[in-house]
Amino acid sequence: MKKIYLDNAATTPVAEEVKKAMEPFFSENFGNASSLHSFGREAKRALEISREKISKKLNAKNYQIIFTSGGTEANNFALKGVASLTSGKHIITTKIEHDCVLNTCKWLEKQGFKVSYLPVDKEGFISLKELENAFRKDTFLVSIIHGNNEIGTIQNLEEIRKICARHNVYLHTDACQSFCKVPIDLKKVNVDLITINSHKIHGPKGVGALLIKEGTKIEPILHGGGQENGFRSGTENISGIVGFAKAIDVIKDKDIKNMEKLRDTLIKGSLEIENSYLNGPQKNRLCNNVNLRFDYIEGEALILQLDSKGIATSTGSACSSKSLEPSHVLIAMGLRPEQAHGSVRLTLSKESTIEEVKYAIEALKESVEILRKISPFKNVQ
Amino acid sequence: MKKIYLDNAATTPVAEEVKKAMEPFFSENFGNASSLHSFGREAKRALEISREKISKKLNAKNYQIIFTSGGTEANNFALKGVASLTSGKHIITTKIEHDCVLNTCKWLEKQGFKVSYLPVDKEGFISLKELENAFRKDTFLVSIIHGNNEIGTIQNLEEIRKICARHNVYLHTDACQSFCKVPIDLKKVNVDLITINSHKIHGPKGVGALLIKEGTKIEPILHGGGQENGFRSGTENISGIVGFAKAIDVIKDKDIKNMEKLRDTLIKGSLEIENSYLNGPQKNRLCNNVNLRFDYIEGEALILQLDSKGIATSTGSACSSKSLEPSHVLIAMGLRPEQAHGSVRLTLSKESTIEEVKYAIEALKESVEILRKISPFKNVQ
Repeated sequence: MKKIYLDNAATTPVAEEVKKAMEPFFSENFGNASSLHSFGREAKRALEISREKISKKLNAKNYQIIFTSGGTEANNFALKGVASLTSGKHIITTKIEHDCVLNTCKWLEKQGFKVSYLPVDKEGFISLKELENAFRKDTFLVSIIHGNNEIGTIQNLEEIRKICARHNVYLHTDACQSFCKVPIDLKKVNVDLITINSHKIHGPKGVGALLIKEGTKIEPILHGGGQENGFRSGTENISGIVGFAKAIDVIKDKDIKNMEKLRDTLIKGSLEIENSYLNGPQKNRLCNNVNLRFDYIEGEALILQLDSKGIATSTGSACSSKSLEPSHVLIAMGLRPEQAHGSVRLTLSKESTIEEVKYAIEALKESVEILRKISPFKNVQ
Repeated sequence: MKKIYLDNAATTPVAEEVKKAMEPFFSENFGNASSLHSFGREAKRALEISREKISKKLNAKNYQIIFTSGGTEANNFALKGVASLTSGKHIITTKIEHDCVLNTCKWLEKQGFKVSYLPVDKEGFISLKELENAFRKDTFLVSIIHGNNEIGTIQNLEEIRKICARHNVYLHTDACQSFCKVPIDLKKVNVDLITINSHKIHGPKGVGALLIKEGTKIEPILHGGGQENGFRSGTENISGIVGFAKAIDVIKDKDIKNMEKLRDTLIKGSLEIENSYLNGPQKNRLCNNVNLRFDYIEGEALILQLDSKGIATSTGSACSSKSLEPSHVLIAMGLRPEQAHGSVRLTLSKESTIEEVKYAIEALKESVEILRKISPFKNVQ
């Protein structure tokens, strides 16, 4: 059976050119970047070239790029690192953040911080007015996800940033899903902290980065040998970092356009199914994200059904795929629990094809039909 | 020029069989281990097989193995994770820990904890009596490095554990350097927490683990999607973890014996140099560690001189190689700053040969002679 991978928001295959770039850093140029000898200097050089590449990609001249073990660590670092140096007490975030921001906020609440969770509208957008109203005198940080991992909603960072700047409050954004899919010019957007990672863009797992604008007060969360300019201790994962830097070239503009087309075809085809709905917006949506809802259907049953047809999809964030709770993102958008449970996410990559999309639409139609026949929901509603 | 790598305590090249084992997990079995579909299930299976392999290696049946981004994260996790749930106030550690334990302790001191730093004798061993005397009513954790990264001293974990058990206090050990070089049977040693990592044993960088004995009270330090049984959030680095698990088979018993022989040859040959000394013990020393001291010599000048002859060595921990401070380990052993500055570490691997060792001895002799001729120290002393 041919396998069709439509869960690229969870993770992506490492691109051939990325693997090739990483290869020499396993057993040839394998040095520790902190060592003074030639092996170490070569590793250090690769590290700095990688940093420079990522800096250029984001036009991040006045930012420090601190490599981490991934998006989760970078988000933990941003929030806890700023919190531990502030005299403030209050954080503003949204109800639709990734679990690593939400659970870090919950942990910070236990430490005595206060957190406001902004609501979103039925397409997943925050209201700038509500953001404006959420500020308190002791607000020190706003953390808002750029492109949502479940429903693809892209927030207006520039406008958000302007509001934060007026209040003289740091803005952090989790850009793990939008990085390399939505153009980000840090000179323009000017956020204080931005999280990116590698394995969503055909780079290796286990690598990410936090970009920190010069002058931002932040403490490390991992203490030790003082690597990464003192901001993140631990021997640098050179092969991973080199792979990450290479991966930023993988998705081209034409790939984004192609994904947008496929996304729209997939949405249109799927909505031919009776009682089906699109979760999230039509506009300002990640190029690769489709999130659909089907009445009388249990999303988990649907993804297992699709899996049996060789199609990999998910009900939402991979991290919470084993939880029985409905998606907090869909609930925040106003869906009832049974509607949230009836949703499925299909996320494309640059490798996705129109044939795959057509096959997926057919598979969706068949699967929904099969499941509705045996659905207990259909009879009670 | 042939290159001779004698800095294997800093990092090791990834073994061919490890690279091969990792290979399928980049772009074939690339799934997110949290995903429910077949790609995810394959990743999850690889993850659990890796965990099982490491568990067997250490006879760690009643331990949870939590994968991390390396030894630094695992050590931070052990100390901060236990500290955040304790009602105790006091930690006992040693003066010769790796920077990631020392700097985590310093950070904990800032949070209000008290830390006792045990001294060591002139070979780098702690005194069991001094350990015994260091306990207070509010001591909740002892953290002692197993095999020291600079001088190779192997502490007697079993005896240390017995003392901690009598006081009903957790024992953590950083076994990054000893893992796979010194046999560790956790059923026998029975420590509560043990840190291991991958890139010191011919595995990839960016992977490590903390093993936690059942019942040990510890909180995560990275919050998010709840991976690793809730103890460490972040998408699992499957290729890295598979490589780590494969790497535990790389160093065989015969390799350890061979390294011991080469180590002793290297020590004997080097000590033919006038006014040269061995730092650290003759017995109970890591099989691959040589640390030498030469009067009237600046260690950094010596490693650059050796580097120019193609030999990669270090003055001590790679992490602090760029610091001007003398090694805290050598100072703790009673060396004067100028003696500590006159030291160089050469660390072998299973790939090291007698030819390399002979070449290194000759290179040391020549380099020391050259440097002594121009040494300002020689004339003043």
